[in-house]
Amino acid sequence: MQRRKFLKATALGTVGTALAAPMVNAQNARELTIVSTWPRDFPGLGVSAQRLAQRIIEVSNGAIQTEYFAAGERVGAFDVFDEVAGGNSNAYIAADYYWVGKHPGFAYFTSVPFGMTTPEWNAWIKFGGGQELWDKISGDFGLKPLACGATGAQAGGWFNKEINSPDDLQGLKMRIPGLGGNVMSKLGVSTVALPGGQIYENLVSGAVEATEWVGPFNDYFMKFYEAAQFYYTGGMHEPGGGLSFGMNASWWGELSDYERHVITACCNEEHAAQPEEASAKNGEYLARLINDHGVKARSFNEDVWDAFGEAAEEVFEETRDHSELAKEINDHFQNALREIGSWRAAAEVEFSNQRNRILGLI
Amino acid sequence: MQRRKFLKATALGTVGTALAAPMVNAQNARELTIVSTWPRDFPGLGVSAQRLAQRIIEVSNGAIQTEYFAAGERVGAFDVFDEVAGGNSNAYIAADYYWVGKHPGFAYFTSVPFGMTTPEWNAWIKFGGGQELWDKISGDFGLKPLACGATGAQAGGWFNKEINSPDDLQGLKMRIPGLGGNVMSKLGVSTVALPGGQIYENLVSGAVEATEWVGPFNDYFMKFYEAAQFYYTGGMHEPGGGLSFGMNASWWGELSDYERHVITACCNEEHAAQPEEASAKNGEYLARLINDHGVKARSFNEDVWDAFGEAAEEVFEETRDHSELAKEINDHFQNALREIGSWRAAAEVEFSNQRNRILGLI
Repeated sequence: MQRRKFLKATALGTVGTALAAPMVNAQNARELTIVSTWPRDFPGLGVSAQRLAQRIIEVSNGAIQTEYFAAGERVGAFDVFDEVAGGNSNAYIAADYYWVGKHPGFAYFTSVPFGMTTPEWNAWIKFGGGQELWDKISGDFGLKPLACGATGAQAGGWFNKEINSPDDLQGLKMRIPGLGGNVMSKLGVSTVALPGGQIYENLVSGAVEATEWVGPFNDYFMKFYEAAQFYYTGGMHEPGGGLSFGMNASWWGELSDYERHVITACCNEEHAAQPEEASAKNGEYLARLINDHGVKARSFNEDVWDAFGEAAEEVFEETRDHSELAKEINDHFQNALREIGSWRAAAEVEFSNQRNRILGLI
Repeated sequence: MQRRKFLKATALGTVGTALAAPMVNAQNARELTIVSTWPRDFPGLGVSAQRLAQRIIEVSNGAIQTEYFAAGERVGAFDVFDEVAGGNSNAYIAADYYWVGKHPGFAYFTSVPFGMTTPEWNAWIKFGGGQELWDKISGDFGLKPLACGATGAQAGGWFNKEINSPDDLQGLKMRIPGLGGNVMSKLGVSTVALPGGQIYENLVSGAVEATEWVGPFNDYFMKFYEAAQFYYTGGMHEPGGGLSFGMNASWWGELSDYERHVITACCNEEHAAQPEEASAKNGEYLARLINDHGVKARSFNEDVWDAFGEAAEEVFEETRDHSELAKEINDHFQNALREIGSWRAAAEVEFSNQRNRILGLI
């Protein structure tokens, strides 16, 4: 096939030749300022956010120029919502359950206890009506969200003692945000929501005695094992869900269709890449935690799981009582979970259980 | 923020104003001719492939113009490999296990029995060394592959009788490609690999008595229930994996970095979207199959699963014996499966089992 030639446009309109793609002069590019809840170069989540910022430049051939600010570089981690809603920056990267104080419905757009796994949540958001509800709750605050990053099913968390019954949770001080934190509160845990960059110091000082974060690859670099050696693998609180690229809605409204295509494609790409990277590395990092740092991996027993389940029911009832919108989101989510989850239970989970039994993967 | 302006370049180099992105004259665009193994407008897989072709135009702002040919419109479904390897078309969309006759190592780049689920396979391909091996085997045939589309764990298949023991498989004629077909052959099944567009006629005529395809959403439109009413939900043969966008390697080598970024981003986006769409719809379509068409959902019992497991071991041994490259791919795949799968067993599968137990999802 003959190779076709493209012409080059610059700010001055001069014309070059032999370029296979439109070249955009950076000073005429769309600017996109991103503020993040993750520290600079934070393994896993932070690196993913920075990769997105770079990728938008690449995929637009420079037509969109991004500027990325890690937590604290422009505003504090938990100030990014107001920063973007107010129009000072164009977009944030965060977990939207950080905003349950503004509206509890935001929890469903990260992850809720006994909720959807990442593949299930993705199906709901993109093809099951979830995005429309997310647009609605975010739109009330002047924001337009896209899914951008996900963790997969998170580890149950780090504890400084074994949890053998629900009674062992009584009086424990734990970092755990979102509705998962509300479930723990029902079981007598004193919960707090801290940004990722502040957990280690609080755990080492004893201000908290337990914490959840993500999974072995992300958690390894946090050094929680210095203060809490029991690592629970399965957890009820964040089975999946996603992180958000939350844009100022007016700014989004100004974009061309082309600019929206590029941003959406890059968010979709990174939304997939982040859990893929963690999945590829979790096994290796779990082995390091156990072998190099004496971490003890544990599973909650069924008594503890059942107590989580009963507490979660209460939490969802309270969430529904908050407002019409919270009820609408909860009920839509719970219906989708059952419809999407039932087939996956019969196919992917059934397969996984049989394979793991036959191959001896525990 | 002030909205910046971009300049417009056309084939004649005339300059316009007020466009927020570079506009490319279609007649100067990079052309990308795609041949597919799916029939035109085929629900699920075919629609996904057509969506990709459109998306590359959108995300490149027309700098890449695609032309899409469904199965039979330019070449037959199973002729796309030679068509692209020979340079007559630029890319195919297919399941690479269709090419096991050329090299059995291709099976691992779709899905193999007792292999990885879609999230596990994605982790291996993108962050675990899988892409490098895929480049190697495809490169030997002049091709450059990217993952583009996945099915999630596939249903066990459609049968005209219940399968209650391995003996019930003896003498059955079944459409099942790839190494899953080899496993069935070990158990006395007479297997055949037919393109999707030819299965229905063979099933209705009795030329085959059983078939697997994908899952309820994709399978619904195939009308297999007219000839085979027992639908096995979990299956051993294709737990996930992916479909391929296989490009002519020389053509890929000619592209600019920018063009590669766009194509890669669009493939990554569609690779995620296809299983998300199926997951969102499988529950609804399973209910339709059962309620509207009298389909009977079944699960294989552990005796049958164990027989599958033993046969699969033999198949992998034979595959390793084929060549150094087949051995390299198999062993890399099996190691990655165990490392990636073990953490997922302890976290996501553990969570799914506890949630499904507590919520009563079967």
